[in-house]
Amino acid sequence: MKKLLVDVDCGVDDAQALMMALAVPDVQILGITCVQGNTSVENVCKNVLRVLKVCKHLEIPVFRGASKALLGQTVGAGDFHGKDGLGDAPDPEAPGLELVQKEIAASAMIRIVNANPGEVSLVATAPLTNVALAVKLDPSFPQKLKGLYIMGGNTDSRGNTTMCGEYNFAADPEAAYIVLNEFICPIYIATWEFTCRSKLPWEFCDGWLAQDTDKARFMKRIFKHSMESTYSERIEKELVDGQGFISCDSYAMAAAIDDTFIIETEHKAVTVELAGNCCRGMMVVDHLELLKKTHKAHILKKVDLQRFKVLMMNALK
Amino acid sequence: MKKLLVDVDCGVDDAQALMMALAVPDVQILGITCVQGNTSVENVCKNVLRVLKVCKHLEIPVFRGASKALLGQTVGAGDFHGKDGLGDAPDPEAPGLELVQKEIAASAMIRIVNANPGEVSLVATAPLTNVALAVKLDPSFPQKLKGLYIMGGNTDSRGNTTMCGEYNFAADPEAAYIVLNEFICPIYIATWEFTCRSKLPWEFCDGWLAQDTDKARFMKRIFKHSMESTYSERIEKELVDGQGFISCDSYAMAAAIDDTFIIETEHKAVTVELAGNCCRGMMVVDHLELLKKTHKAHILKKVDLQRFKVLMMNALK
Amino acid sequence: MKKLLVDVDCGVDDAQALMMALAVPDVQILGITCVQGNTSVENVCKNVLRVLKVCKHLEIPVFRGASKALLGQTVGAGDFHGKDGLGDAPDPEAPGLELVQKEIAASAMIRIVNANPGEVSLVATAPLTNVALAVKLDPSFPQKLKGLYIMGGNTDSRGNTTMCGEYNFAADPEAAYIVLNEFICPIYIATWEFTCRSKLPWEFCDGWLAQDTDKARFMKRIFKHSMESTYSERIEKELVDGQGFISCDSYAMAAAIDDTFIIETEHKAVTVELAGNCCRGMMVVDHLELLKKTHKAHILKKVDLQRFKVLMMNALK
Amino acid sequence: MKKLLVDVDCGVDDAQALMMALAVPDVQILGITCVQGNTSVENVCKNVLRVLKVCKHLEIPVFRGASKALLGQTVGAGDFHGKDGLGDAPDPEAPGLELVQKEIAASAMIRIVNANPGEVSLVATAPLTNVALAVKLDPSFPQKLKGLYIMGGNTDSRGNTTMCGEYNFAADPEAAYIVLNEFICPIYIATWEFTCRSKLPWEFCDGWLAQDTDKARFMKRIFKHSMESTYSERIEKELVDGQGFISCDSYAMAAAIDDTFIIETEHKAVTVELAGNCCRGMMVVDHLELLKKTHKAHILKKVDLQRFKVLMMNALK
Ligand SMILES: [Ca+2]
Ligand SMILES: [Ca+2]
Ligand SMILES: [Ca+2]
Ligand SMILES: [Ca+2]
Repeated sequence: MKKLLVDVDCGVDDAQALMMALAVPDVQILGITCVQGNTSVENVCKNVLRVLKVCKHLEIPVFRGASKALLGQTVGAGDFHGKDGLGDAPDPEAPGLELVQKEIAASAMIRIVNANPGEVSLVATAPLTNVALAVKLDPSFPQKLKGLYIMGGNTDSRGNTTMCGEYNFAADPEAAYIVLNEFICPIYIATWEFTCRSKLPWEFCDGWLAQDTDKARFMKRIFKHSMESTYSERIEKELVDGQGFISCDSYAMAAAIDDTFIIETEHKAVTVELAGNCCRGMMVVDHLELLKKTHKAHILKKVDLQRFKVLMMNALK
Repeated sequence: MKKLLVDVDCGVDDAQALMMALAVPDVQILGITCVQGNTSVENVCKNVLRVLKVCKHLEIPVFRGASKALLGQTVGAGDFHGKDGLGDAPDPEAPGLELVQKEIAASAMIRIVNANPGEVSLVATAPLTNVALAVKLDPSFPQKLKGLYIMGGNTDSRGNTTMCGEYNFAADPEAAYIVLNEFICPIYIATWEFTCRSKLPWEFCDGWLAQDTDKARFMKRIFKHSMESTYSERIEKELVDGQGFISCDSYAMAAAIDDTFIIETEHKAVTVELAGNCCRGMMVVDHLELLKKTHKAHILKKVDLQRFKVLMMNALK
Repeated sequence: MKKLLVDVDCGVDDAQALMMALAVPDVQILGITCVQGNTSVENVCKNVLRVLKVCKHLEIPVFRGASKALLGQTVGAGDFHGKDGLGDAPDPEAPGLELVQKEIAASAMIRIVNANPGEVSLVATAPLTNVALAVKLDPSFPQKLKGLYIMGGNTDSRGNTTMCGEYNFAADPEAAYIVLNEFICPIYIATWEFTCRSKLPWEFCDGWLAQDTDKARFMKRIFKHSMESTYSERIEKELVDGQGFISCDSYAMAAAIDDTFIIETEHKAVTVELAGNCCRGMMVVDHLELLKKTHKAHILKKVDLQRFKVLMMNALK
Repeated sequence: MKKLLVDVDCGVDDAQALMMALAVPDVQILGITCVQGNTSVENVCKNVLRVLKVCKHLEIPVFRGASKALLGQTVGAGDFHGKDGLGDAPDPEAPGLELVQKEIAASAMIRIVNANPGEVSLVATAPLTNVALAVKLDPSFPQKLKGLYIMGGNTDSRGNTTMCGEYNFAADPEAAYIVLNEFICPIYIATWEFTCRSKLPWEFCDGWLAQDTDKARFMKRIFKHSMESTYSERIEKELVDGQGFISCDSYAMAAAIDDTFIIETEHKAVTVELAGNCCRGMMVVDHLELLKKTHKAHILKKVDLQRFKVLMMNALK
């Protein structure tokens, strides 16, 4: 049984990643923590509950986390996932926020991992504010994790938010910096460039959405807005190596739940640039080993896209 | 009854501030939170317990907090207070760390203030890591405080640690930035320049230490190291307006416990410079109102030094 | 005979400083170099020619210099000196730009100083772009100067342009940095805080302008705009220690032409903060001697204001 | 006839680039300007004279330029090209520095281009200090150029000097920033990543050096040191996409002298990060068009390597 904690800013791709995990029999999600990002933390909580409802898993506890970045800013993710983060396709019968736990996200993370030492993989597909706070509250938190799977950061300075910065890192550079420095556990990173280079053809997406299930119909509704946006002038500039279906957060999730998914990684020390007019928030790969860090991250380079397609298809079955 | 929470990195002046508060009848210290700074957080906890023992107040709960700054660095305070923070004058019969509470500092702060809403003054005489974490965990924490009293920061770019930075702010600039931005409660700041300009004559100190009490003998032992250091070449360069007895942390404490202490403040928006080679960690006073902040801080300018002397004398009685 | 080179962005106080020098019998101005600042470099050239005309010294060569800062920005000085830098009180009979020399400012500086090695004092009352370019073109330029007299920079982080930055330094921080690092000659700095603290009473100004001379009438016309601005909300915030008549640039000039003017200086290493959101462009005084610079600057602290008044009065006689 | 100005910090690859140009019949080098970089500016001058001697072109004027970067630092290029920049293989009969012109590099550049308006291509294969000073002295300099060909900068944050910075840009970030902003003429950039991806096989190099000519014997002597260094642990980390023969500066030169060399470029706005702990000196490609720059650079992507090999072979014939 794979035990997961998932930290999300529940845009559409977070939803896709969650639905992928919820569909795998030997995966148990111990909790879902919410953080601002694609939308406000309230919306993120609501979106997670909607996903859990459609997947019939409302028993999984949902926790509210940070409503802004460590230094207080909120960096909007544009309108890509819609204002509400799920394509502005509201559900009048959505579960209410009273289902959200009282416990704060960072505390819940620590408690849950303490109860399952060495067994929990943390999948973080959002600005890393909650994750950073957990290690600040309990410096021993990382060493009790089985692994940390991140969607975020850059390898080639190809920004999708600032000139050189990927959204999850650029939205809270200090949090990303803390996490990359202090999480002394195996770290796997699906960067923006990696996800772009691992995109699927739109034809796959068509078949994926055409499945005759409630989950596929739900996904079709919430994904419409992003799919249309992807041919906008701005998004075209962000994309590395052209068009296609990029479910960013799902790559980090697939890595956490399927041991055969990752084919090749680069094992390098990484950090985050905190100052600068162009590069604040950019992930930096220390190819020259100038940082003298002993702890290195696994940067995803090549994955099994056939496995990925199967995981994706199953998510909506 | 004045209810206090005190956050310390218990060097000698934190000890002086604590002893001042402990000696005032209508002051109740609800908890003391510890953070690295003058020395390691373990030493800080030990030092606080030694102070409580000599003052016969070991019933006050002591909480362990952050062992490094938000971004992970530890900026030594030099050797001014000695390696152990209390003048390297150890006490073989000091209380043990088993007296420290299990609860983490930031959580304790939130719990205690929630139990006494609107009644607690938080006195922070150390790097602001714990205080910043409290607001990150609970954004409503500041508005439940009666006031926040800080020793730290600069008005005139006179550094005592970096070229332009005072120790408590320079040791964790991000924490100071968060606190100055997010504590929407009355804030009172005793800056480095203010404490230098409010120094007492060494003659006062002689009389203060000459009192025939256990507390005075304790202070004389732990203060010897700092007193001798104050005429060193380095400390001379740090001091603004020349020599004298400067119990930095005691000014913030006096402001919290005695409503007649403050005579004049400047009411200005303040922030902290986070980048830069010379100025990182420097407190910035927004005289030109370029920040457009509506919440402003009370920067101490003039205090009642006669009251201060009385409070100081009583501390060792 | 005192030989001067003067580098100006000819606002009203540059004009006052020039007129002070032009009125002293044993002072010879070898050239006036112009740089953008209070207004465009074209306006600066025009303004200098107007001053020279009213002082009957159009024989002094005027050189055009940089039209923007080293990194390309132009930081307007607000409207304090008027749009044209001289109070928007145009003179239809002003001399034309054809009187400006063909030689570029930095080259002229080098040539003139080479012809008078060890004899020339350079008075710089503007962004230091031209001065920095001179040392970049000829690294031996500074050691051939008798001295460098600068109006600019801060001692106490009291900005008049950015939060912590004085105009001349903030308008070209890299130039100021280069000059403070590479001018290995005696440097005298009249900072913003110093000039504020050395202000003259408005009553003096009244008598000064009331002299029955062409020069006084000229000054009265061009100064009207700034005098009225000084009681604006914004200027009130910039001023240190309250209102009065502050002819900033004239202090640097007085120091260059009268050996008895300076009573007290601080001899410290100085530099300029180049990064940072609040402090970029702020002059930094290295009180702690962390820069390990052997070359230090003379920061003006106390001057003979009686001498200053005499020099000022004579300027308009 | 193609007219060139060449600005070099004459390491071995600058020598290769110069020899390439000197071997092309319809290319005329109007002047060679020297700047510190791989070695001191004095060594650079000496190295250029040695190259001109072996190529029998000592009639080409050589000019001394900047001995340090704009802000005063000197960033050593490690020992890759040897301490003297030409493989530490001295020539006792090398020409003396008395052959260097008296005129300073930046002034010579301006004069030469003024005499050949619209006809001169400037090839810059070194820190851009001299080139930046030329535009600072004469803002109209760029528009009189035919084109600017630069070796330097990054596209993918792969540093060879700092974590993310290529040597020529990292050695003088402000100069690179000025040049990329103010040279409103066609700009062609051969970045570090591009040169790595356009490397030649070592077998080519063997044949190249095996030619029975004085030039080939000269190159063999001065190139030995770098060739041996290329398999060092450090250089292996710097290289993008593995080993091979990379004559960095020769790509910029080939682009300037052969109109058929460039096959594909990216036309993007570029700038340089000036702040930051990891990214200072990194070239930034503005894919998202956030800079709103109208002037864009041609970033080399694909070149005719067969043409390149011919040009290289001819260089040593
Ligand atoms: Ca996400
Ligand atoms: Ca303290
Ligand atoms: Ca001026
Ligand atoms: Ca080179």
